[in-house]
Amino acid sequence: MIERLASKPEKLVVGVMSGTSADGVDAALIQLRGSGDQLTWRFLRHETLHYSVKVRDLILRCCDPGGGDAASLCRLNVLLGELFARAIQHVAEKAGIDAASIDLVGSHGQTVQHLPVPVTITGIPVRGSLQVGEPAVIAERTGITTVANFRARDLAAGGQGSPLVSFVDFLLFRNRSRGRLVLNIGGVASLTAIPASAPADRVIGFDTGPGNMVIDGLVSHMTGGRESLDLGGRYARGGRASDDLLARLLDHPYLLLPPPKSCGRQEFGRPFLDSILKENGTLQPKDLIATATRFTAESIAFACRRYVMPHNVFEEAIVSGGGARNAYLMEQLRAAIPELSIKESDEYGLPAAAKEAVAFAILANETLHGHAGNLPAATGAAHPVVLGSIVPGRLS
Amino acid sequence: MIERLASKPEKLVVGVMSGTSADGVDAALIQLRGSGDQLTWRFLRHETLHYSVKVRDLILRCCDPGGGDAASLCRLNVLLGELFARAIQHVAEKAGIDAASIDLVGSHGQTVQHLPVPVTITGIPVRGSLQVGEPAVIAERTGITTVANFRARDLAAGGQGSPLVSFVDFLLFRNRSRGRLVLNIGGVASLTAIPASAPADRVIGFDTGPGNMVIDGLVSHMTGGRESLDLGGRYARGGRASDDLLARLLDHPYLLLPPPKSCGRQEFGRPFLDSILKENGTLQPKDLIATATRFTAESIAFACRRYVMPHNVFEEAIVSGGGARNAYLMEQLRAAIPELSIKESDEYGLPAAAKEAVAFAILANETLHGHAGNLPAATGAAHPVVLGSIVPGRLS
Repeated sequence: MIERLASKPEKLVVGVMSGTSADGVDAALIQLRGSGDQLTWRFLRHETLHYSVKVRDLILRCCDPGGGDAASLCRLNVLLGELFARAIQHVAEKAGIDAASIDLVGSHGQTVQHLPVPVTITGIPVRGSLQVGEPAVIAERTGITTVANFRARDLAAGGQGSPLVSFVDFLLFRNRSRGRLVLNIGGVASLTAIPASAPADRVIGFDTGPGNMVIDGLVSHMTGGRESLDLGGRYARGGRASDDLLARLLDHPYLLLPPPKSCGRQEFGRPFLDSILKENGTLQPKDLIATATRFTAESIAFACRRYVMPHNVFEEAIVSGGGARNAYLMEQLRAAIPELSIKESDEYGLPAAAKEAVAFAILANETLHGHAGNLPAATGAAHPVVLGSIVPGRLS
Repeated sequence: MIERLASKPEKLVVGVMSGTSADGVDAALIQLRGSGDQLTWRFLRHETLHYSVKVRDLILRCCDPGGGDAASLCRLNVLLGELFARAIQHVAEKAGIDAASIDLVGSHGQTVQHLPVPVTITGIPVRGSLQVGEPAVIAERTGITTVANFRARDLAAGGQGSPLVSFVDFLLFRNRSRGRLVLNIGGVASLTAIPASAPADRVIGFDTGPGNMVIDGLVSHMTGGRESLDLGGRYARGGRASDDLLARLLDHPYLLLPPPKSCGRQEFGRPFLDSILKENGTLQPKDLIATATRFTAESIAFACRRYVMPHNVFEEAIVSGGGARNAYLMEQLRAAIPELSIKESDEYGLPAAAKEAVAFAILANETLHGHAGNLPAATGAAHPVVLGSIVPGRLS
């Protein structure tokens, strides 16, 4: 069944992503031919299903250090699988196609813990990352073969399990004559640096630090949970960044770690947000949001200048993720790295908000073909590995 | 890669099982040809790697109601993956074969939560079962394609996710002329009833109640954790069962649930043990162990008489699992159902202790072939489903 699927010349594939913001699930439908160097693709449709407050709260509880419990996690895994299946059916419907004609699903899942720094337990170094959203539920509800749990294998091979999107950036955006930075500003901001005409093993990628996570947290706090993001950057624009707080934020030890590196809620989640709120009670909420937005822009710029631009020539930056829709953040970013031409991925046929979901559709296809999907230079893995586990679709 | 593997006429397959007793991991190596009705197999070797007290404690914390936290679970998942990989390498070494010649691994994982009773969350009925022991770690360390996470799909199809071993019992032990009961007495006791010459859809299976779980818990309590099981039943034999306590135990509501049904630590784990200890302080520890052993035997007998024997003729019972090695328990069982000829699975070429591990080797092979591996009459699923997720082995 799997071989028959892999050998189909053209496939409809849905990628599903539930990001660190934990505000909803993105499903992106693409059509693709071939794989690896021969891959060609066409974006068809992207839809987001927002989570209810209750679901978001269940997720965030499992993300807190020491939070969650095994029974809640067991149930959350199944609950999100059901919601992911609905998102897949929804995007198919909106695209006007029968879900039964979809060949493959790639589901990233919802990260609840990302712990890539080894801890020794009974003499064994342990590094892990936990994504929930049961793929067996997806496969059962939709009937579609589903690839999931992409990060575990890279971690097992000594990598950070992240960023996985770098390999996809390489497939989608490599260019003969122009050096490109590909930025995804989701909850976390990740960067892929692709020198002009570089082979895969010269591409590097890492998480630069926070994306929208801190901004979103401050907006949610300011609005008593009624709003979960700074739409278009209007709150930030109405505030005034504190240079003093910004300088302190830019002292965060994560920024000074050399790549490969990855981060998540462990570094920039609730405890980080709480400490900002506690230590800066005199600043207005909008000023905090403006400062957090500058922090995201400046930490990205810092990463580019310190770890990337000294080594190669880069002309363009292609930005995706929810952060690309924050006009104030994009202005700050352009101001911070004026020498780069900064564009949204939409100009390249890929809607900014669909980027990560599309990435996991493409990675699922690579897995189905038995190809490696990680870039060791990005994740730090000892070697390339086939990512994920394959859950067969409906019995035919 | 997967298709090539499936098409090999003869395969070496290792099954890995870490049971509800949480005392170690069993790895069983078998050689098999074909699949489904055409399956033939030969047992080669079985080894157990016992967990350290620390590992067992980490597991049991995640099994308690409300226990575990997301970060601990994330790390336990990886840690057990590493230990399972060692168990696979160990059984290969003991069998005198190169681990690289093993074709396939089927890993059940360690159940930390089994919650098959639906709970409605945001309007969605949720039923789940959580097994840990990351298959990506197994595949990376051993290089072998690994099938894992067998229960999730059956649950998604409306089943209990258990007992899965019933389908394997059917493949291994069905008989033209004799009705057979196949009993596995692990932490939990499960039963498969195969009438003479019955097709798969007339086979039923369910968990009868506790296997060794309560006995083990009492031994561990009595010895301050130095011993974890009643070797050969010597403590039970040295005690005297309390008829009064036995009668109360046999009133447990689980026993009266009609099949399909499954149970685990939720029903017969630490809280159940604690209540026995608290309410029966006047009984000697050995008397409690004798009573718990009778409880296991009588609850199995009750299940046979109430749900199985009225409907068909059964001549034999074939017993496997650690409980088959408890001579006192076997005596009690024979006394409780004298009309059955009760034998250990060893007499049929399958060492009692290896049974469950062998079952997951066989189920992995069915999954690889794209065959269903559940028996709806045993699990309660709406239809047969392909079980598990497939993690590809090393890039060749």
